[in-house]
Amino acid sequence: MSDPAKRPLRIGLAGLGTVGAGVVKMVQTHAELIAARAGRPLSIVAVSARSRAKDRGVDLSAYAWEDDAVALARRADVDVFVEVMGGENGPAKAGTQAAIAAGKHVVTANKALLARHGQALAEAAEAAGVALRYEAAVAGGIPVIKALGEGLAGNGITRVMGVMNGTCNYILTEMEKTGADYADVLADAQRLGYAEADPSFDVGGIDAAHKLALLSALAFGTKVDFDGVAIEGIERITLPDIEQAADMGYRIKLLGVARMNADGLEQRMQPCLVPLSSPVGQLDGVTNAVVIEGDFIKGVTLQGPGAGEGPTASAILGDLIDIARGLNVPAFGQPAASLKPAARSSGGTAAAWYIRILLRDAPGMLARVATVLGGHEISINMMRQYGHEGPGAPVVIVTHPADTARMQSALTEIDGLEVSLAAPVALRIETL
Amino acid sequence: MSDPAKRPLRIGLAGLGTVGAGVVKMVQTHAELIAARAGRPLSIVAVSARSRAKDRGVDLSAYAWEDDAVALARRADVDVFVEVMGGENGPAKAGTQAAIAAGKHVVTANKALLARHGQALAEAAEAAGVALRYEAAVAGGIPVIKALGEGLAGNGITRVMGVMNGTCNYILTEMEKTGADYADVLADAQRLGYAEADPSFDVGGIDAAHKLALLSALAFGTKVDFDGVAIEGIERITLPDIEQAADMGYRIKLLGVARMNADGLEQRMQPCLVPLSSPVGQLDGVTNAVVIEGDFIKGVTLQGPGAGEGPTASAILGDLIDIARGLNVPAFGQPAASLKPAARSSGGTAAAWYIRILLRDAPGMLARVATVLGGHEISINMMRQYGHEGPGAPVVIVTHPADTARMQSALTEIDGLEVSLAAPVALRIETL
Repeated sequence: MSDPAKRPLRIGLAGLGTVGAGVVKMVQTHAELIAARAGRPLSIVAVSARSRAKDRGVDLSAYAWEDDAVALARRADVDVFVEVMGGENGPAKAGTQAAIAAGKHVVTANKALLARHGQALAEAAEAAGVALRYEAAVAGGIPVIKALGEGLAGNGITRVMGVMNGTCNYILTEMEKTGADYADVLADAQRLGYAEADPSFDVGGIDAAHKLALLSALAFGTKVDFDGVAIEGIERITLPDIEQAADMGYRIKLLGVARMNADGLEQRMQPCLVPLSSPVGQLDGVTNAVVIEGDFIKGVTLQGPGAGEGPTASAILGDLIDIARGLNVPAFGQPAASLKPAARSSGGTAAAWYIRILLRDAPGMLARVATVLGGHEISINMMRQYGHEGPGAPVVIVTHPADTARMQSALTEIDGLEVSLAAPVALRIETL
Repeated sequence: MSDPAKRPLRIGLAGLGTVGAGVVKMVQTHAELIAARAGRPLSIVAVSARSRAKDRGVDLSAYAWEDDAVALARRADVDVFVEVMGGENGPAKAGTQAAIAAGKHVVTANKALLARHGQALAEAAEAAGVALRYEAAVAGGIPVIKALGEGLAGNGITRVMGVMNGTCNYILTEMEKTGADYADVLADAQRLGYAEADPSFDVGGIDAAHKLALLSALAFGTKVDFDGVAIEGIERITLPDIEQAADMGYRIKLLGVARMNADGLEQRMQPCLVPLSSPVGQLDGVTNAVVIEGDFIKGVTLQGPGAGEGPTASAILGDLIDIARGLNVPAFGQPAASLKPAARSSGGTAAAWYIRILLRDAPGMLARVATVLGGHEISINMMRQYGHEGPGAPVVIVTHPADTARMQSALTEIDGLEVSLAAPVALRIETL
């Protein structure tokens, strides 16, 4: 055991919630298997969490205890700091910085931390010659960081896209399945533990946007630009939207899209219509899917569990085994210093749009809508009027491709007329 | 450039067919991008192929030429030998062996070579301290070797499964779409270049079985055992089979399944019924999909182009970038010497079966079939009789789970009776 490459890789685990407990279980369950594959044993030497007393259903007796994540990160007997506490600042950030400063590798599941501080942490890690890995931070157990940053690294990436929040996808598919409306399904999701007591991070699209910002940096060699993500949650999506989209062969998904346009990086996390027949359109429940498109690969879709104890632990173990094997790829696929600031694309690429208007029941209403659209050179591909909802008649329009700016001004104008009883809903139709 | 880790990684490319030309295009197109991601330039220094004269649509003038792959492999200025010639012996094998003996890394797309000689080559590579990588050999551009051997390496793998031959999937989906029969669609596929002049490797399931044997070794830590794969091609699949399977909510796929049972490793490459609604059931045309199931990850599905110039080159570039970055994972995920001989599972796990019998048009025929099945304790889940085909009446039966041995003896007995006008067709129904 004198060869350092054969010595155990010693882990300091910060955070003993669902994910932390999963990591302990996996390391204990597969010690032999992991040692064979990693070429050396993985051993947890110390752990840290808020409460020492709490029973987490795992045996921690063999591990040293630290009350403080920073102290854990600095321990002389720790080679890798595993951060599964969460939070974009506080102990997660302090512990990660301390670990890097002390020359320890870092494995984290913390998308918020990296979306905010990824560039600085990546630079620090490279300066210290340590690995900073985060497979568990994006799409749970799906090895998408590895696929994008390693397997497909020879490609010029053209688009990265995906459903990356299980809570939102669960809510949208349950609304469709049960016919219940948003608020009721959300309440169920909270009872089932799929949604937090404060769901805004999930349903507001912020959690998924954190993930998209990391994928963008990796895909396009740009500095992480979370503030550059156009974020829209699923709170406004109604049952009629879901039903009428389905009626036209589409499904509504909270879809993240990152694309490099001539004028800069386009990053969107918003409800979109996708073809029912596409892999992403088929996605049900808490499953995640990420589509990676490159100039030589064309498109690859990775699909699997986006969250949960086992899948997230699986991703963390993958990173730990890479480190044990001596792999050290820059966090964002190339030296952090070489990442370019992301110029932001204005408006984004043109797309077909789904528009839903609750028409006031009076003559000539539809004509006025059509006139406004025509005036903005937005041509109509499909239009359907549905039975009355109370006083109004819902009209659904699918347009031919139009860019965001033009669509926005048309909507504003329509909203200004007296034709619509509610603010018109407009959702992009993303082709897959 | 004195730091060896920053010096260009020098490539000797053996084979200039579709894949070889794709590698040249990718290296030339993305030189800068690849250097940024790999941390050093990738440069092709020498190439080798059958005919030097042939125009391959790529500029080879900057590269030295070798008539002989072995000479190419031994060149002092080559760091990595890229083998895209194909063939399980001959120059592919000789060149690969020579490269390893000379201390060069090897990247190959050659599933036949590895299915036959993978163990010996992996041992030689590890003894020489060089990498032996083969992402392009399985499922084309889909980074499945990386996902299984690295990203999911912390899992106890329970099942690996997939559609890994685009030609077969194209033929089966075309039969379904066009209603044409096997022979006609195969002829079209040959015209379109999707199928070789001698299609037996593809439609006979051998090509896909090569790939499955590699996945099994990686998944279960066993020595590659190609001869242990139960192989059945798609030649016997008829249009009525496809239509009647669909009628019951299934699709027929040439499906590879590897599973570790109590009595040993189960490896099957054969036409199976899969649920229409499953990701694999949705698969059309030449697309491949691989499902990896593990005890912590549950299931991950990777889907994408299983062949073609771009996707295959993408997989080879991924391997080359890994090598440039200094990654050296054992070929089958753990030291070759530690791989165990694969005990072969007899019969394999029980499954529901689809049985198709062309009943002779006489009283009591169906009763006799049901009696035989009952006698073998195979109970019937669904049974449907269809309109006459000539003299016979096709009857389709879906059974409850029964193991292979029991099903085989029942079929033999049914075949022996005078009830069936043709040998009964039996296909496993694989749950996903």
